Amino acid sequence: MVENPHLDLEEIVRDSFDEEEFNQLLTRLTELEPAELALALESMPLEQRLNCWLGLAPEDQIAALTHMRVDARENVFKQLDDGQLKTLVEEMDVDALLELLEELPQRLYDYACSRLDASQRRWLEMALTYDEDQCGRYADHDLLIINKNAKVRDAIRLFQTVPADAEYQDTLFVIDRTGRYAGQIQASSLLGRGSHLPVEGFIDEDCPVVDGQLDLDQGSDIVARSGYTALAVVNDQGKLLGRLSIGEALENVRRSLESQFMHTAGLDEEEDLFAPIFISAKRRAVWLGINLLTAFLAAWTIGLFEATLQQVVALAVLMPIVASMGGIAGSQTLTLMIRGLALEQITEQTYMTLLRKEMGVAAINGVLWSIVIAVITYFWFGDWLIGGIIGLAIVINIIIASVSGVYIPRWLDKLNIDPALSGSVILTTVTDVVGFFAFLGLGSLFLLA
Amino acid sequence: MVENPHLDLEEIVRDSFDEEEFNQLLTRLTELEPAELALALESMPLEQRLNCWLGLAPEDQIAALTHMRVDARENVFKQLDDGQLKTLVEEMDVDALLELLEELPQRLYDYACSRLDASQRRWLEMALTYDEDQCGRYADHDLLIINKNAKVRDAIRLFQTVPADAEYQDTLFVIDRTGRYAGQIQASSLLGRGSHLPVEGFIDEDCPVVDGQLDLDQGSDIVARSGYTALAVVNDQGKLLGRLSIGEALENVRRSLESQFMHTAGLDEEEDLFAPIFISAKRRAVWLGINLLTAFLAAWTIGLFEATLQQVVALAVLMPIVASMGGIAGSQTLTLMIRGLALEQITEQTYMTLLRKEMGVAAINGVLWSIVIAVITYFWFGDWLIGGIIGLAIVINIIIASVSGVYIPRWLDKLNIDPALSGSVILTTVTDVVGFFAFLGLGSLFLLA
Repeated sequence: MVENPHLDLEEIVRDSFDEEEFNQLLTRLTELEPAELALALESMPLEQRLNCWLGLAPEDQIAALTHMRVDARENVFKQLDDGQLKTLVEEMDVDALLELLEELPQRLYDYACSRLDASQRRWLEMALTYDEDQCGRYADHDLLIINKNAKVRDAIRLFQTVPADAEYQDTLFVIDRTGRYAGQIQASSLLGRGSHLPVEGFIDEDCPVVDGQLDLDQGSDIVARSGYTALAVVNDQGKLLGRLSIGEALENVRRSLESQFMHTAGLDEEEDLFAPIFISAKRRAVWLGINLLTAFLAAWTIGLFEATLQQVVALAVLMPIVASMGGIAGSQTLTLMIRGLALEQITEQTYMTLLRKEMGVAAINGVLWSIVIAVITYFWFGDWLIGGIIGLAIVINIIIASVSGVYIPRWLDKLNIDPALSGSVILTTVTDVVGFFAFLGLGSLFLLA
Repeated sequence: MVENPHLDLEEIVRDSFDEEEFNQLLTRLTELEPAELALALESMPLEQRLNCWLGLAPEDQIAALTHMRVDARENVFKQLDDGQLKTLVEEMDVDALLELLEELPQRLYDYACSRLDASQRRWLEMALTYDEDQCGRYADHDLLIINKNAKVRDAIRLFQTVPADAEYQDTLFVIDRTGRYAGQIQASSLLGRGSHLPVEGFIDEDCPVVDGQLDLDQGSDIVARSGYTALAVVNDQGKLLGRLSIGEALENVRRSLESQFMHTAGLDEEEDLFAPIFISAKRRAVWLGINLLTAFLAAWTIGLFEATLQQVVALAVLMPIVASMGGIAGSQTLTLMIRGLALEQITEQTYMTLLRKEMGVAAINGVLWSIVIAVITYFWFGDWLIGGIIGLAIVINIIIASVSGVYIPRWLDKLNIDPALSGSVILTTVTDVVGFFAFLGLGSLFLLA
């Protein structure tokens, strides 16, 4: 029984160590669960990360790598020479190999394959027939399989082979003679049963299965909502491909929500906190470039009204307010829509209801804040007309922003483009251009002498 | 065995139904797991949601409510009269009561308490000594408890009382005579054991426990990383308060990541997609108001340079580009920091390493894009000086943005303010003010005749 085992990285991650401290650190690291170990390594600057990782036993090295984010893992891999890679590969089972596939040079991958036994190689081949985002590719092959004709005593013997640190291994997966999946059995349902009885009688009939072709996120949701600790993943002939456990489901849910958050800033959820400067700069440059196009479009819109700005400089001063209010209101609608789409909560049937609601909210807030801004503008510039113009421009921009906030993610979703990544750039373009155009347009109409 | 049980809301959520369709819908809803049922109800406009919910059996009504987001749930609760509430309350166990506490008028809460048996009331009282964000408050009381002196046959009998649809009930929680928690036992470890043996011998020694005072997010992380399906939650005297299961841990992880995402737009993760217009408008108005202060600060900065803008109108046209590039670069750093802080991945020791890295990235991208923008500006306005000025302003703004992106979330985190909620407003204020000041200030210095 371990009291309060919360992982405290403050004691683990430091800038420098003497030898004794370093050895203490290594001991502490080996006590961690694989997911914690991976997190601890990701939290270290590159040099410390590599040194710590090299100090681990080979099985911990592999466990850490398979649990680390792709970028953080690559920053370890890149530092290894061929000899080190070869030693590493010799320890890999089929699941580690599938996870680390892309990091390995072809030659080492072939070498690793040649070391797998026949059944592991079959798992590998079946997994590789699926895409990277499908459940079949990520099914876990560390599972207890039993034949339909086996007896309870065989099942008990099988459970007794499970090592103490195994995760979520309270389930037997039953197959028939032809290898087709026939159902699963919980350990608890075998308690107190006659050891001569066939296991078949204890199959859980209500238990769902996951189709290997299903999207990994959807499969993870099924596991998460099922209340079971693991579900079978099967191919289209009903053959068992592996299992998807609640632990993996949780990691997938986490990854998918984290990516939604990171995408709002044009970042990837795999981004390494301590990525080398040039690599980070290169990736982020792309996002800055895309946003620069948006900014130039906004500038071009303003440029259309140069003559007006020259005469009424107050318009230049107030411009950012119009764009900003539209941007904020639009991003609220957009964010709500992105969450709804991610939860598959928004249907064709309810789009109009949502649009009406969002437009209603926009109308109320548009009018409310327009009045506030118009009054402040009057006291600032002493001109009711400018106050009226900015107010009207803001009402227009906020309403258009809410409509865009509803429709932009819908279109992107239909085109299979991630709305969390592209939605905000497009929305900002709309609110900037509409905001500047409405404000400066109205200004030209009413203020030019 | 259920094939591909993925929840398809397209077939469930509609704008209108005839009676037969409605009855089919109700049948379909009752087949769902509680979490799916809650999601389906949340996906319905308010009227359909209420009608469907009213058509459910009382136990499904409660299961749905306890799994729904707070706002979506409130929008059902508000429509119920006293008689309906009373019927509902009569079905609530201690866990439902704890979850729905805040929605109930005092009188009905007292009535519900009076109906609990002594042991349930003890659970309730213990839970209420903890805060709303602590594990002790949310410990689940639907768990299998056994005395240390019991025999394996008692344990088996206990497992056999578990209903077929129970979730993650493969664990026994062992207490001693004084009610202190003594460890947990997995069902699988009892398989094939002599029924006369004391259960004490099968306690899992390595299993962590969760302190009731621990933050719910941290407790959930411990459960998620432990590899166990449920852990005991104990008070400071070592008494068992309940359990935290992997299912609840997953829901907490989901909620906490979702809130991070929603907070970036000043929304709450409990926000109902179909919230009534006035309620939504009121909440969002606050965020718009806060952002308006930011926008006025930016406008005021521009106002300092009215004379300059009047003479060089190109500056007004190009202004948004400077602010936008700083804002985007800063938000990338900010987002990376927020994730790192949420994962408790950033330590005092690594702040300087991170700052150096982010400033390095900013310097590279600042110089790169400054050159691009300077060249475009030259071709647009035919003036190298304006190009140079905007380039220099952008380098300054991007570097200051990256420093702010590192320090703002750090300060907010130290002040216990959520950086995901306030970080972006403060950052935008900095990048707008610095951007406009640098650009227009340099313009005044070099361009005024």
